[in-house]
Amino acid sequence: MIVLINRYRYLFYSLLLLVGSWAHAQSELPIMPYPEKIQLDNGKFYLTQSFNVSIEGTHSDRLPKEASLFLNQLVEQTGLFLNYRHVAGQREQAALKIVTERAGNVEIGENESYTLQVNASGIVLKSETDIGASRGLMTILQVIDGDEKGYFIPHVIIQDQPRFAWRGLMLDVARHFQPLQSLYRTLDAMAAVKLNILHLHLSDDQGFRFESKLFPELNSKGADGKYYTQLELRELIAYADQRGIMVIPEIDVPGHATAILTAFPQYGSKDTTYVLERFAGIFDPTLDPTNEEVYVFLDQLFGEVVKIFPSPFFHIGGDENMGKHWDENPDIQAFMKAKGIRTNHQLQSYFTLRLQDILDKYDRRMMGWEEILADDLEQSAVIHSWRGEWEGAAPKSSLYEAANKGYSTILSNGYYLDLILKAKDSYMMDPAPTSANLTASQRENILGGEMCMWSELVVAQTVDSRLWPRAAAIAERFWSPEEVKDVQDMYDRLDVISLWLENFGLKHISSPNRILRKLAAGHDPEPLKILIDLVEPMKGYTRNPGGTMYNTFSPYTKWADAATADAQGARVFNQNVACYLHAKIGCSDLKSQLISWSSNHQKVVPIMEDSPALREIETLSENTSKVAKLALETVGYLESNEKPGSTWFVEAKQLLSKASEQGGRTELQIIDGVTNLVAALEGEVK
Amino acid sequence: MIVLINRYRYLFYSLLLLVGSWAHAQSELPIMPYPEKIQLDNGKFYLTQSFNVSIEGTHSDRLPKEASLFLNQLVEQTGLFLNYRHVAGQREQAALKIVTERAGNVEIGENESYTLQVNASGIVLKSETDIGASRGLMTILQVIDGDEKGYFIPHVIIQDQPRFAWRGLMLDVARHFQPLQSLYRTLDAMAAVKLNILHLHLSDDQGFRFESKLFPELNSKGADGKYYTQLELRELIAYADQRGIMVIPEIDVPGHATAILTAFPQYGSKDTTYVLERFAGIFDPTLDPTNEEVYVFLDQLFGEVVKIFPSPFFHIGGDENMGKHWDENPDIQAFMKAKGIRTNHQLQSYFTLRLQDILDKYDRRMMGWEEILADDLEQSAVIHSWRGEWEGAAPKSSLYEAANKGYSTILSNGYYLDLILKAKDSYMMDPAPTSANLTASQRENILGGEMCMWSELVVAQTVDSRLWPRAAAIAERFWSPEEVKDVQDMYDRLDVISLWLENFGLKHISSPNRILRKLAAGHDPEPLKILIDLVEPMKGYTRNPGGTMYNTFSPYTKWADAATADAQGARVFNQNVACYLHAKIGCSDLKSQLISWSSNHQKVVPIMEDSPALREIETLSENTSKVAKLALETVGYLESNEKPGSTWFVEAKQLLSKASEQGGRTELQIIDGVTNLVAALEGEVK
Repeated sequence: MIVLINRYRYLFYSLLLLVGSWAHAQSELPIMPYPEKIQLDNGKFYLTQSFNVSIEGTHSDRLPKEASLFLNQLVEQTGLFLNYRHVAGQREQAALKIVTERAGNVEIGENESYTLQVNASGIVLKSETDIGASRGLMTILQVIDGDEKGYFIPHVIIQDQPRFAWRGLMLDVARHFQPLQSLYRTLDAMAAVKLNILHLHLSDDQGFRFESKLFPELNSKGADGKYYTQLELRELIAYADQRGIMVIPEIDVPGHATAILTAFPQYGSKDTTYVLERFAGIFDPTLDPTNEEVYVFLDQLFGEVVKIFPSPFFHIGGDENMGKHWDENPDIQAFMKAKGIRTNHQLQSYFTLRLQDILDKYDRRMMGWEEILADDLEQSAVIHSWRGEWEGAAPKSSLYEAANKGYSTILSNGYYLDLILKAKDSYMMDPAPTSANLTASQRENILGGEMCMWSELVVAQTVDSRLWPRAAAIAERFWSPEEVKDVQDMYDRLDVISLWLENFGLKHISSPNRILRKLAAGHDPEPLKILIDLVEPMKGYTRNPGGTMYNTFSPYTKWADAATADAQGARVFNQNVACYLHAKIGCSDLKSQLISWSSNHQKVVPIMEDSPALREIETLSENTSKVAKLALETVGYLESNEKPGSTWFVEAKQLLSKASEQGGRTELQIIDGVTNLVAALEGEVK
Repeated sequence: MIVLINRYRYLFYSLLLLVGSWAHAQSELPIMPYPEKIQLDNGKFYLTQSFNVSIEGTHSDRLPKEASLFLNQLVEQTGLFLNYRHVAGQREQAALKIVTERAGNVEIGENESYTLQVNASGIVLKSETDIGASRGLMTILQVIDGDEKGYFIPHVIIQDQPRFAWRGLMLDVARHFQPLQSLYRTLDAMAAVKLNILHLHLSDDQGFRFESKLFPELNSKGADGKYYTQLELRELIAYADQRGIMVIPEIDVPGHATAILTAFPQYGSKDTTYVLERFAGIFDPTLDPTNEEVYVFLDQLFGEVVKIFPSPFFHIGGDENMGKHWDENPDIQAFMKAKGIRTNHQLQSYFTLRLQDILDKYDRRMMGWEEILADDLEQSAVIHSWRGEWEGAAPKSSLYEAANKGYSTILSNGYYLDLILKAKDSYMMDPAPTSANLTASQRENILGGEMCMWSELVVAQTVDSRLWPRAAAIAERFWSPEEVKDVQDMYDRLDVISLWLENFGLKHISSPNRILRKLAAGHDPEPLKILIDLVEPMKGYTRNPGGTMYNTFSPYTKWADAATADAQGARVFNQNVACYLHAKIGCSDLKSQLISWSSNHQKVVPIMEDSPALREIETLSENTSKVAKLALETVGYLESNEKPGSTWFVEAKQLLSKASEQGGRTELQIIDGVTNLVAALEGEVK
């Protein structure tokens, strides 16, 4: 199994030696999302300069475009000077033959399956739709490998299709605007891992990003000059369509509407002026559901939006409307009394149902966050389940409730990328596991899942490292069979895929590196790299307490912004500790790394002296070196079968507790491993 | 002189130890371009969260925008959470007071001077125009420093103004299209180093990049779908104007016109069909100067261009028209006979003068490459001097000829960034040195210089590392006093400025790093980094022999694309060798580095085995390690005062000669240093 062995080198280079032979892997090729069926053979099909592509069967002009993109990527990956770069129609003796039956449509439930067969005669990619073929082309790119003879694709037969029809990514472009180029590379990376929905959160308290020609005040007053023109969105949507991705608009109402109210305060529930929100949180401004003009306005605005977004889904938000201004407004209270509306939730439902009429007129299915669930909601609505433990709710409760009531529904709880969960935490969240007691029709109602990238603490420079590579792991959850859930194997492949994703222009590796270069202030950034690889940004909502530590204009190129959700160095270390404690032989050497870490702080100190922005990590850096020294001592005791006195253990635990405190809004991730070492020492040696 | 000492750490980190105390520096602050006058004091003005900006005097809305950009950059650089991010009008007790007398105009010869005074009471920036103030703001950013107390600006008085009025950069967006975002970050970096002209080479044999609404065929047939819309250009030009930069259009005629002729073959000098050129070189297709319809067409097209580009200058190209199709066309020959036109150059002059009438009508000054020089050319024309040694001409001969004939003129010879000259080579080229025997009026006619970034071998991903940081050194030549020309000092500051330029979104460091990560194919790229730091891409036109090795669609993410024009490691090594041979004491340690290089190849080998794209550097890598071993031996002999036999010297020279050969289209740059070591051994020890 040459390929398998070969692939181990891809385990991210600096960690190669650490992972060593103990690592477990079930996958034969570094494909992500992993395909439904794969049968690997021993041969190799070598790629040469005369590599060319043939297109056969019925398709739209998507297919030549996608094949051309594929060739660009192939050249980018391999550096081959291809003789044939033009893709149009059938060729005899093509290295890659693509055979499709019909043009695909970008719609939920479209056939995206493909089969791939690579043998000595070449590569054959077959699919019903040209969207399926696009998915297969990405798989081919993932399995290109090299050896002493050149680049090759292993002989293999792959059969593949998605598990869930809805495999989405929501991008909050309201709180921090994302430039167009960022959206394009996001689309490319999404296509690379077979995601098919881009949901744009276009409005919130901090900004309104859709160009309205009917209501230009929404942009002039509500956008800080940062919004997408209708032309830009049309082109973006057309490109997404080529890539087999649907773009869904969200105009968040009635809450999260401050940006709208800066332009049209008369539609608010409180008689006041509004200014764009600069902080994070849940705010009071909300539309007035008792004002008929509000519906006239939304009708016109939605009409403008649907002209640009052909998607059959229209997301109206509907979340986190607390109704404080409703409580305070006597007119609204009188309206509720007159209509027999008793709660704010009922009032919001009244509002929601009014919007449903508007969207019905425009032939759009209403979609909204789970708060829109109401008794009279039409069955066509799609319920977006998002609340979970952070919000005091049982995860997936609204998902299952909606599915049970016959609504189409998707899951975002567990997939909030801004909470900086480790990839494995999102990865293990399954929208509809076999273990869940669901009827066939309930299962059918669960369309899939959607990651959410809320952008309170994310700017264009950092969004890639917050999205990727984690999004690829979640994409696997949405696409691959339920049984594909070995965490270690996922991480092994994710390390490979992360490097591969750079081919699509992502900055998830280069941007954190660049922040570290800046923080290093002319010094060698290596000691900072060593440390950042052991820490992760504070999780959940803890980095930005009360939503007031950061505002829109705060710097987002600090220490925590260079840290990522999965501290790779710490992950491998903790894994090696487990190996050490479990096997004691055949594991990677813990000591040399601990020695390097234990002296790292003294290398950070001179950098810190010249770089005031680093002062916030002084304690973190010092404690990290201390913890490494402690681990070294522990290993020393374990190896010599000695045991220190009880004071030593007391001090060890104090240090581990202190070292768990945040520094630079990040947290050290090797505490678990070292705690386990200390516990083993305490327990094992009598 | 705390600041000066402090600054040494900025010498690019990995080389810090090598440069050590021998390095020579004349500059007191890492400013580039270096200002006219600088008086540095001992105090420090610390930046705090309450840093704010006051704007006083008359200005356009450029100034608040520029001040706001400045604050963004300040936050980006320092990570300070500023309390005041809004810039509008006068504030008492502002940390930074900007005082201007009038709005500036983006025109040649506008006052761009400023004075900057930093003392205990704060920062005062004074200028006649708000463009001058913008220039001063960039200087402030360059002198922000940090110590254990925080970020500060040293107490200093700076008086500054440009030496040349024309400080340009030409970007060839025709051969390889540059996406808009690339142009924007180029503008930002240009402003950062006080350049004021962006010249867009919009058409050539390989593409036509200006959206023509009158002649949409130019885009549909001549652009591969890649061109700038008029709206995009308007916005770009407006942004450039804010940054104090003029954007000048070039429509290259009559040669370099294949893209135009793909759309309108009837305007060509040969009765044929034309297809977009995919290779590099000088091609035959040329407009027919005897066809009156050509002038009608160009009149309309130019009319469209001038509506978008307000610049008083209009570049018509005019270069490298060999007239082969003129020679072959009997009608053209008959026309020449009838008109008494004897040479192709005269025929081109006829064409040029016809265009002059058109541009006069549009109130534009004609600008063209030096070939447009002709007897009847109007005095308003601007001559763009470009030929030099590579073209068999004396450098600056056309510059001085034009200046002598009373034409405004600018110099590009010596500043062709695509030739991959070392920064110092361009840096030492002075358009009008005191040593040149020029009259006052001749001097006045020399407006300045313009770098050229021709894009045969450059794509969006690599353009930054081809432009920067070298462009900053050339910008200094254009802006700073003639006497600022210490090469070592320039490089010392360039190393600092290169890191600083990343703050403007440039990818000149991250993009080569990313290419190396790709080439490393999952291995640690460090051995590749060590090697790439010792090589430079082949110079001049040698990388792409005959213009046929690469075409438009070739891969440009190979080994040579990760190499840059100034191999920093080699530069510092050669400098250390000079120190060693000159002083023998007080120099940095040569040996430890040589030991590391001599074993580098064995680390490259396993990477190469998995990365077929690296196979092309096998010999280069091997020879580099051999040369390092040779240098080690030489130093050993020198230190022990021994001398090897003559065979040793023969073999040494053979190795050095072999190691000079290219590998992966790059050349090893430590040969000089090692050759000097060997020569010293050969000569010194009797």
